[in-house]
Amino acid sequence: MKERLKGQPGRRAPGRPAGASGDGARPTIKAVAAAAGVSTATVSQAVNGTGRISEGTRRRVLAAAAELGWSPSASATALRRARTRTIALVVRRPTDVLGADPHFSELITGLEGQLAPRGYGLLLHLVPDLAEESALYERLVAEGRIDGAVLTDARADDPRPALLKGLGLPAVLLGAPDPAAPVPGVGLGQQDAGVREAVAHLLRLGHRRIAYVAGPADLVHSGVRRAAFEQALAEAGLRPAAVRHTDFTEEAAVTVTAELLARPDRPTALVFPNDSMAVCGMGAAQRAGLRVPEDVSVVGYDNLPLGRWLHPRLTTVDQQVQRVGAAAALTLLDGCGEQVPAPLLDGRPRLVVRESSGPAPAGRS
Amino acid sequence: MKERLKGQPGRRAPGRPAGASGDGARPTIKAVAAAAGVSTATVSQAVNGTGRISEGTRRRVLAAAAELGWSPSASATALRRARTRTIALVVRRPTDVLGADPHFSELITGLEGQLAPRGYGLLLHLVPDLAEESALYERLVAEGRIDGAVLTDARADDPRPALLKGLGLPAVLLGAPDPAAPVPGVGLGQQDAGVREAVAHLLRLGHRRIAYVAGPADLVHSGVRRAAFEQALAEAGLRPAAVRHTDFTEEAAVTVTAELLARPDRPTALVFPNDSMAVCGMGAAQRAGLRVPEDVSVVGYDNLPLGRWLHPRLTTVDQQVQRVGAAAALTLLDGCGEQVPAPLLDGRPRLVVRESSGPAPAGRS
Repeated sequence: MKERLKGQPGRRAPGRPAGASGDGARPTIKAVAAAAGVSTATVSQAVNGTGRISEGTRRRVLAAAAELGWSPSASATALRRARTRTIALVVRRPTDVLGADPHFSELITGLEGQLAPRGYGLLLHLVPDLAEESALYERLVAEGRIDGAVLTDARADDPRPALLKGLGLPAVLLGAPDPAAPVPGVGLGQQDAGVREAVAHLLRLGHRRIAYVAGPADLVHSGVRRAAFEQALAEAGLRPAAVRHTDFTEEAAVTVTAELLARPDRPTALVFPNDSMAVCGMGAAQRAGLRVPEDVSVVGYDNLPLGRWLHPRLTTVDQQVQRVGAAAALTLLDGCGEQVPAPLLDGRPRLVVRESSGPAPAGRS
Repeated sequence: MKERLKGQPGRRAPGRPAGASGDGARPTIKAVAAAAGVSTATVSQAVNGTGRISEGTRRRVLAAAAELGWSPSASATALRRARTRTIALVVRRPTDVLGADPHFSELITGLEGQLAPRGYGLLLHLVPDLAEESALYERLVAEGRIDGAVLTDARADDPRPALLKGLGLPAVLLGAPDPAAPVPGVGLGQQDAGVREAVAHLLRLGHRRIAYVAGPADLVHSGVRRAAFEQALAEAGLRPAAVRHTDFTEEAAVTVTAELLARPDRPTALVFPNDSMAVCGMGAAQRAGLRVPEDVSVVGYDNLPLGRWLHPRLTTVDQQVQRVGAAAALTLLDGCGEQVPAPLLDGRPRLVVRESSGPAPAGRS
């Protein structure tokens, strides 16, 4: 992985001091202008977003700049540092979901645990859609603002790894390791293991009507976990009591829980896609006069600190969010030429059994 | 405030395009070298952190650069943008507390709600102490990496506002507005109002033994709220059942709650410094066999989304974290020359009464 990151086309090895041998081959603005068939002034305008040039020209210039590994920072005066000591984390999610979901706090904690002691910062951007996310990477690279990027929420046919590889920017994609991907994947193996273990746990407790609350259908991990849930039940000759996709909001957790528990054949166990939704679901169940776990079992996902302290304590899946964040940071720091230990991430998601899951209620199992 | 921010010494008005009139007076590296009594090479080394120069020389150069309003970004080629579109948020707190306390997610949500639509990002740095925080601002300014900074956790005799004013960087300090401060304060007025209202609410419910769990003693808001708590009780002829300063961790919430509730003259109400600690305290009380609020009332602080969904729903103080974050962002964006609406923040902290507070238990009040 070290070789791959360092060998990305046209990117100057960040650990090499300015002026060292090899800098003679550093790309110039003239080369970019020639490759794009425009003037150097147009290159400047494209990079600065000034002047009146067409979107097509702008993209052609940025593509040529990426191809040649040129950026304003690389061409600027020797006063500029080779390293920005900044890693980008671009999150494509509504701002209010970020606030509600402690998952991102955990991820940032894991990243910062490695970045902060080395003087690196995390540049956080929230974007509404893929087009803005892609344009943002292009701008940050063109302006020489970042040394690397952490990609979250892997999606099917995700174009971002190829884009970042094309821009010559070290990047990691959070999720299961995938040797074929253009950028290293950082995550636990056996992504389906946690949900499978949760289902096995509930089956052992006598549950037969188990419902699954999922995240957005187009997220890779939503699909992986839903399939794991359905397969684990199928192996026991069962079908899901219900599957509901949601937008990850706490309102959705409360609404879906209330709906599921109002059914005459209500589920005896609910499996949630994250801990904050599980906590909301637990509250909704208690509010409906049901006891957790005596009347309904609740299982979360993420193993956030809060779950240890609630009453009842939350049964959840530990996917080591902080350790994944730390491993992502170490992988990027290595790609930036820093001397760091190799990231250690050899586990898989594991069920943590606490108090919110218990035997299926008699007569309802 | 607009005038103050724009009038900071030596800082080029960010809205002015490169090459416009006035740029003739732009400070040069030579002027910085002359002012500091060193060579331009030494200026470069001081800014880049390279070479072997003493810490004293480095600080003298950076002070001269700040005085003259010079930075590498201002002197670099015209390819560099005048704006970095980056706002710094430096948090001096252990990384694990960041993960545990959703307060920061809320703050970031409020900031991003204004920054993201305008293409601005938030550069998050975690630092262990004031020395590193100060050095970081100097470096980020010297390297031209940020357009502004949000200061959190105001402390008594806080040197940061003067430092940032000296560096010529637009900044805001979260907390109560203070017209005399070197940088604008952004926050609700009447910072003591929330805790006073909480105490009045508990007194009306018949509570007489009320304990206060506080944050670190050296934080300004810890002191303000503790004083408000003690004064509100004193006005009713009462003294606190207990006051405990903590480090904001969930472990501390659980430990302190268990200790307080094990006392023979146990408090009938607990007031916490944030919602995550209140939730942990509520769990600890329930685990000890006490009912909330029948046996003990619990009041939080922050009005985080989670509190609405728990059972019982959390009584808490709404200090409008997201709105404060939004106002901080708008103030800084204005200082960066962006066209933004004036920040609206005319409220005060208010108690939100829900279900975790109730009448004092009979015979124990």
